[in-house]
Amino acid sequence: MTKQQMILVAFMQASNCSNYPASWRHPHTASGFMTADYYQNIARVLEAGKFHLAFFDDRLAMPSQYQGSYEEAVRHGIRVVKMDLVPLMTAMAMATTHLGLGATYSTTYYPPFHIARLFATLDHLSGGRVAWNVVTSLNDAEAQNYGLQRHMAHDARYDVADEFLEVVYGLWDTWEDDALVLDRAQGYFADPAKVHWLDYQGQWYQAKGPLTVPRSPQGYPVVIQAGQSSRGRDFAARWGELIFVIFPSIEVGKAAYDDVKTRAANLGRNPDHLKIAPAVYAVVGETEAMAQEKLAYIESLADATDSLVLLTEVFNYDFGQHDLDEPLSQEAMDSMSGIRSFLERVIQGSGKANPTLRDFMAYTGRGTLRELPRFVGTPSQVADQMEAWLRGGACDGFVLAATHMPGAYEDFVRLVVPELQRRHLFQTDYAGRTLRENLGIPYPEWGTARSK
Amino acid sequence: MTKQQMILVAFMQASNCSNYPASWRHPHTASGFMTADYYQNIARVLEAGKFHLAFFDDRLAMPSQYQGSYEEAVRHGIRVVKMDLVPLMTAMAMATTHLGLGATYSTTYYPPFHIARLFATLDHLSGGRVAWNVVTSLNDAEAQNYGLQRHMAHDARYDVADEFLEVVYGLWDTWEDDALVLDRAQGYFADPAKVHWLDYQGQWYQAKGPLTVPRSPQGYPVVIQAGQSSRGRDFAARWGELIFVIFPSIEVGKAAYDDVKTRAANLGRNPDHLKIAPAVYAVVGETEAMAQEKLAYIESLADATDSLVLLTEVFNYDFGQHDLDEPLSQEAMDSMSGIRSFLERVIQGSGKANPTLRDFMAYTGRGTLRELPRFVGTPSQVADQMEAWLRGGACDGFVLAATHMPGAYEDFVRLVVPELQRRHLFQTDYAGRTLRENLGIPYPEWGTARSK
Repeated sequence: MTKQQMILVAFMQASNCSNYPASWRHPHTASGFMTADYYQNIARVLEAGKFHLAFFDDRLAMPSQYQGSYEEAVRHGIRVVKMDLVPLMTAMAMATTHLGLGATYSTTYYPPFHIARLFATLDHLSGGRVAWNVVTSLNDAEAQNYGLQRHMAHDARYDVADEFLEVVYGLWDTWEDDALVLDRAQGYFADPAKVHWLDYQGQWYQAKGPLTVPRSPQGYPVVIQAGQSSRGRDFAARWGELIFVIFPSIEVGKAAYDDVKTRAANLGRNPDHLKIAPAVYAVVGETEAMAQEKLAYIESLADATDSLVLLTEVFNYDFGQHDLDEPLSQEAMDSMSGIRSFLERVIQGSGKANPTLRDFMAYTGRGTLRELPRFVGTPSQVADQMEAWLRGGACDGFVLAATHMPGAYEDFVRLVVPELQRRHLFQTDYAGRTLRENLGIPYPEWGTARSK
Repeated sequence: MTKQQMILVAFMQASNCSNYPASWRHPHTASGFMTADYYQNIARVLEAGKFHLAFFDDRLAMPSQYQGSYEEAVRHGIRVVKMDLVPLMTAMAMATTHLGLGATYSTTYYPPFHIARLFATLDHLSGGRVAWNVVTSLNDAEAQNYGLQRHMAHDARYDVADEFLEVVYGLWDTWEDDALVLDRAQGYFADPAKVHWLDYQGQWYQAKGPLTVPRSPQGYPVVIQAGQSSRGRDFAARWGELIFVIFPSIEVGKAAYDDVKTRAANLGRNPDHLKIAPAVYAVVGETEAMAQEKLAYIESLADATDSLVLLTEVFNYDFGQHDLDEPLSQEAMDSMSGIRSFLERVIQGSGKANPTLRDFMAYTGRGTLRELPRFVGTPSQVADQMEAWLRGGACDGFVLAATHMPGAYEDFVRLVVPELQRRHLFQTDYAGRTLRENLGIPYPEWGTARSK
């Protein structure tokens, strides 16, 4: 991959809807969102379009805090289904040969030994195509499903997560590359001198090791990270290889892009080995008018409840208890937790220290297509916008969210991908066999994680 | 399935070896035990042979207590690889259409919400072919990988596990069968009146719910259980649907079979809805002499270290610290934990309150083929033995362990299955679509788990 070419990632949901909650109401959305066929079909579409990666986000509870209940979320189908990601990504891996597959797994709710073993297994089974999206999890509903009382405060979660990653990488390093001997006649399976205890004794985690899975094809599975707060960016700069972000504009994106790359360089990392990809929607048509009509139709499927339910979830605060135009009290603002960068966006965007619900809806765009930048138009117009972001130094590629499934990916692969390829902005074939090779991130030598 | 027909289950390992640690040293063992092809190939062999189920056991640590280290285990390849089971069973599900797929997941190391969501997802993705083998886990090495200091005492684990299962079944009941409406035009996704909080507040577990996965094709995934102690049998009689056991003989088997079925009946369950299947090896040849030669060759692959390493693991006690003929002190015996029934078998078999290491090796058979009953001979002779167990009331079927992989299953499917079918002892095709249908266990009405 030349430096001028972009990375393309599909933003998947193991759910009845895509990122856009109204997507399930679209008549062209495929049914069968709980079947293997549904996910395997999308995987084949993405691989035909030479996408680098399909990556799933996750949430360990349905939205259930809006007016103290899941009722409106269930009635309207607002992200109430969230299946476990591992069976889905495995099914997709079995239907493809080069597409990378990423899954979100929370450091708050799973033990590090489990994550290390699981992703090493997936990396073997997929032939080196796996990525782990590290999240520290969000809200009280998740905590209550897992028997915890309240969710941990924001910065503390990252301190715990640092330790978590030290354990996971440490376990991935318990087998050296050439530990396996496999001499049947001599009964000599592996060299014990190349297998190691971990003996990690941290403040929050202990793990003795060794892992029960030898080193996997990518050395370490690729690590995806999405932190956007200052503490989150430090975490991403230390551990992330693919950085998933939300940038409202090229200008904001360029500043954040430079900041994360600088943080990584300051930690001694090669900034080219962190790839930064903002999430966007694309709505493409054969003519501009067709694209605009398509957009208008898709937007008409949304319901205000979608926004309020999802704002409630992301801020851990019940948005069903206020009038839409009531400024929120400082006490209300202080009691919000969750994704810090969203809150900052509302305060900055509205210019109010105490925004109203309408401000929250407008400046987050939560539950609507306005949550992310939208590239709308003909294939050429969409490609122009993507080229501007890439050449403008705001990203190394894009995470493409779907307005509906799988139609948005089918449209993009048929119409936009050929235009990007014609401009030499996107690969016409996969560069290699593993996700690392395809992303242009070198194979990590054994033991290098210890210096992180 | 008529009552006279047997259930056949393949006893899988996500490992370099089968149950028989020496299996990897067999020249006919397939390589590639960390690839999808390896497991998908076995799945296709089993489905061609109309096996009901392939089920994986698990262990969350390599044997690492023998002489205080993993060194001998790694050198000799004694179960040092244990991959995560979910990617493997998903890959096998994608290569088959009727074969059931079971996985062991420990109640000690995973949260109940995770297990409930994971197995519901697998059940959807496989079209209703999934089983969960409930274990309470075994040893200190596992505890140390998960950051726990020592493993819980035996009976306490089952008390905690009872609560764990109440949570899991409770979560599976948070969606009624017909909760999904899926009316796109009206934007009406699901009926909130048919989705329920769990609000479980137990001594060890809390979970609020609802689960993020609607009710799955089997209602509840099939539950496998393997408890053999008295406390374990009570647990199995309450929760188990397929009971995995080790019976040294028809006589012992018949008594235990009757006991578990009686315990289930006493709890108000229909004993026919618990299927009991003992683990066995089969070594089959075109002639008896060929089978005996095959057996002798396979047994010659074993090493005494295999036994000592695995005895150490199962008893949570270092068998590397004694001479082979030294009677173990009462203090040593008392410090053993793990599978209670193994210890009872050694004491009863040897007639000694303080057995030697040689007694442990002889009366458990651990690490050798003598660990399980062996059916050896021509197809007709093997079928005779299986028929005797089935007609003798010692079982409803068998869990077939492999002497080597996949050769043992290939031999069995080619030679023994047709003989069993000729005798009408085994199905010539699958009875239905789901594992429950194929096992002859009725679909559970919504809400019935609450009376367990």
